[in-house]
Amino acid sequence: MIDPRVASGLRDLLPSAMIPRERMLETLRKTFSSFGFVPIETPHIERMEVLTGKGAGSDEVLRQIFAVTNTGGTPGELALRFDLTVPLARFVARHIDQLGTPFKRYAIGSVFRGERPAKGRYREFTQCDFDIVGSESPVADAEIAQVIHDALAGIGVPDFSLHLNNRKILDGLLDSFGVIDRKAAVLRALDKLAKVGRDGVLKELTAAPRGSEGGEPSPSLPAMTADQAATLLDFVEQGNGPGDAVLAMAEARLGTHEAAKEGIANLRAVLDLLDAAGVPTDRLVLDLGLARGLDYYTGIVFETTVTGWERFGSISSGGRYDDLASLYIKRRLPGVGASIGLDRLLALMDEAGWLPGSSTTVPVLVANFPGVSPTIPVRLAARLRAAGVGAEVYPEPIPIGKQMGYGSTRGHAVAVIVGPDEERSQVFNLRVLATRQEDRGLSWTTLEDSVRSALRALGKADSY
Amino acid sequence: MIDPRVASGLRDLLPSAMIPRERMLETLRKTFSSFGFVPIETPHIERMEVLTGKGAGSDEVLRQIFAVTNTGGTPGELALRFDLTVPLARFVARHIDQLGTPFKRYAIGSVFRGERPAKGRYREFTQCDFDIVGSESPVADAEIAQVIHDALAGIGVPDFSLHLNNRKILDGLLDSFGVIDRKAAVLRALDKLAKVGRDGVLKELTAAPRGSEGGEPSPSLPAMTADQAATLLDFVEQGNGPGDAVLAMAEARLGTHEAAKEGIANLRAVLDLLDAAGVPTDRLVLDLGLARGLDYYTGIVFETTVTGWERFGSISSGGRYDDLASLYIKRRLPGVGASIGLDRLLALMDEAGWLPGSSTTVPVLVANFPGVSPTIPVRLAARLRAAGVGAEVYPEPIPIGKQMGYGSTRGHAVAVIVGPDEERSQVFNLRVLATRQEDRGLSWTTLEDSVRSALRALGKADSY
Repeated sequence: MIDPRVASGLRDLLPSAMIPRERMLETLRKTFSSFGFVPIETPHIERMEVLTGKGAGSDEVLRQIFAVTNTGGTPGELALRFDLTVPLARFVARHIDQLGTPFKRYAIGSVFRGERPAKGRYREFTQCDFDIVGSESPVADAEIAQVIHDALAGIGVPDFSLHLNNRKILDGLLDSFGVIDRKAAVLRALDKLAKVGRDGVLKELTAAPRGSEGGEPSPSLPAMTADQAATLLDFVEQGNGPGDAVLAMAEARLGTHEAAKEGIANLRAVLDLLDAAGVPTDRLVLDLGLARGLDYYTGIVFETTVTGWERFGSISSGGRYDDLASLYIKRRLPGVGASIGLDRLLALMDEAGWLPGSSTTVPVLVANFPGVSPTIPVRLAARLRAAGVGAEVYPEPIPIGKQMGYGSTRGHAVAVIVGPDEERSQVFNLRVLATRQEDRGLSWTTLEDSVRSALRALGKADSY
Repeated sequence: MIDPRVASGLRDLLPSAMIPRERMLETLRKTFSSFGFVPIETPHIERMEVLTGKGAGSDEVLRQIFAVTNTGGTPGELALRFDLTVPLARFVARHIDQLGTPFKRYAIGSVFRGERPAKGRYREFTQCDFDIVGSESPVADAEIAQVIHDALAGIGVPDFSLHLNNRKILDGLLDSFGVIDRKAAVLRALDKLAKVGRDGVLKELTAAPRGSEGGEPSPSLPAMTADQAATLLDFVEQGNGPGDAVLAMAEARLGTHEAAKEGIANLRAVLDLLDAAGVPTDRLVLDLGLARGLDYYTGIVFETTVTGWERFGSISSGGRYDDLASLYIKRRLPGVGASIGLDRLLALMDEAGWLPGSSTTVPVLVANFPGVSPTIPVRLAARLRAAGVGAEVYPEPIPIGKQMGYGSTRGHAVAVIVGPDEERSQVFNLRVLATRQEDRGLSWTTLEDSVRSALRALGKADSY
């Protein structure tokens, strides 16, 4: 016998996990589509060269790549994609003349990384990305935030915060300090604020030993003065909150710096557009310290946390980039996009108890009564489905108690039962599975209405 | 620069191909769900041992396997799945105690085969499978046929035939001839009927040279008598048509053969159930020569052809199997299922002109008029979306003619235009993109109704 386990770091998704997942994906597809984002699909297998090109992925991601070879193929030529961004860049480079701009696409699919297996970390996981390529308008920036908002609201996340920043503002401050060339080191230090506290960060920001030649300090250290470091920390701490106050503060501090001014104007325009779009202001938080995607994002950046569940980290992130497809074509293609962390969001909602616990996709079980022709339940179930009510017929005429047990375990709401007596009178019994209460002798002629009202009384949907 | 092409035998799916594909998948998921089939997902990567176990795949499929290795992994240990049936068997073996029976699942996903690339043949393609595991009831057999019917009708295939057979009937005939041990050879010969004609098949069926030792004829040849061969061909030719006539003929010929009787009773029960379920009789064709999945299926078998497009072959096929997971566990798990050939069906519908030609997911383009605040189009589009009407805002305030060109090319039905004059009067112009006709000066207050009636007048949906 062969052991039916999956390979290390991979997993099977059972119906109880897949049912809420499919529902979530349907909401996402509907939301993306309603804004005119079109679906695309690229192969799971890419040419190795495409995935390992300079800047396509971090060294860490490249170490985790899965190589793919078929009989007769050349080893090292093919690999599984590790994200949907590199495939988007390749796709756009190849097809943009045909597609035209602005090009708004979404893509949902599996990506693969040979990470060390750990709890909640899998070697295959799903990414849901949406991007607007070929536009530099703040309308595009705002639309990405709006999609994040509408998607999470549509999914049923009760409360969340969308954190916004524009990378140009912090850059402006570092430029005004003369340390823009040390940005990476500064951001690395800032990133530790929650962990090491203000004093720890101050210490790291001002650390400035001489380089090994006794000349300039190493560019891998922030090397700021104590004044600069304190100002930066104040700026980041005060720059976290509702839009108007934060932007006024930033303007007072950096209103004359060209790039910073652009960043401030961009955020102001985006907040106006989000207000026009009906996104509640109290869900928007400006965070001038937010600096994700160090080498990639160049303008607005987004992160999203669920209120009360911040420890799960950001469940939707993204930002604006300068040039998507520069590895493949000369044409400059700026864009803006974000990604929804489906697996993380599902784990969060599961832990929060926001997912339905059912293992069935239909509310109605139609019993297959021993001694009654199975054409009866099959006919009644077909009628329910035709009326938009999901219904399942138990396939074998086993004792009714066992059939009801099946329904209770799976999570059907009600059962339609026709025994020999009911068949003769052309009626049915409607049983609520949770309470075992039965409404008896209901006429076949009003089947659909009876079932629908019973479901409504139970607060259950007609179709799951 | 890196060449942005995909690897040989793989493909990018552009929006014009993906939009009808997503719509089709949504219909399939809805149909499967309405019968209580639950979604599952297994990894794209399986342990090699699982895929290459005896009987898991044909020699041809195993030669086409893609091996997968990550840094530090052992070569030859992992591979990409080549179908969704082997993963189902492994999944069921691993989880059936938790899942219980009957277990009705659907799965939609990519599978990989390193076939020689050819027109319309790809190394990655999508399978859509649905199965009922752990039931031997004809109710389950009929339900699979019913799902095929409802799915194709729901997708909008105008007319099609569902071909049914039960393998036990032909087996009974071959048994009565004493050639059941040569079944493979007989079916191979029968399979050539369309190609070589009746006489060619008769010749092959009666070919019976001695084995190399001069003893019994080789088991790889049918070795039937001329009478038997003629009877078999008559049986297969007469056994193709509407249910009642075909079953009466089979009963007259084989009514005393135990296994054949079972097969006939099964088909009769399935036809009764399909009639109760409202499946039109004229879409059902019995075909006693139908023998797909030689080593796998043991009872009812299905194939489906689209009327007028038979040359595309079967677009949905399946059948009943005796024991799904015998490679992994001792528990016997019979079942029945089928697969919808998504790629083939899309190719057929594309060629038949049954797919919409649009490259957008929304019917409405809201213009971004130069000189008008972009908050105006963003606000109007958000209102349309909230009313269930898909709407896209053009991100840049470029000349209106170019924005309209974008809408015409993508396939938006109408454009909402607010210029500076309209902004002052709080009105908009509604342009039909195909005819360039404009309804001018419509009030913002009745935006949703005006747009909806315009779409209705054009025969377009509110949301694509």
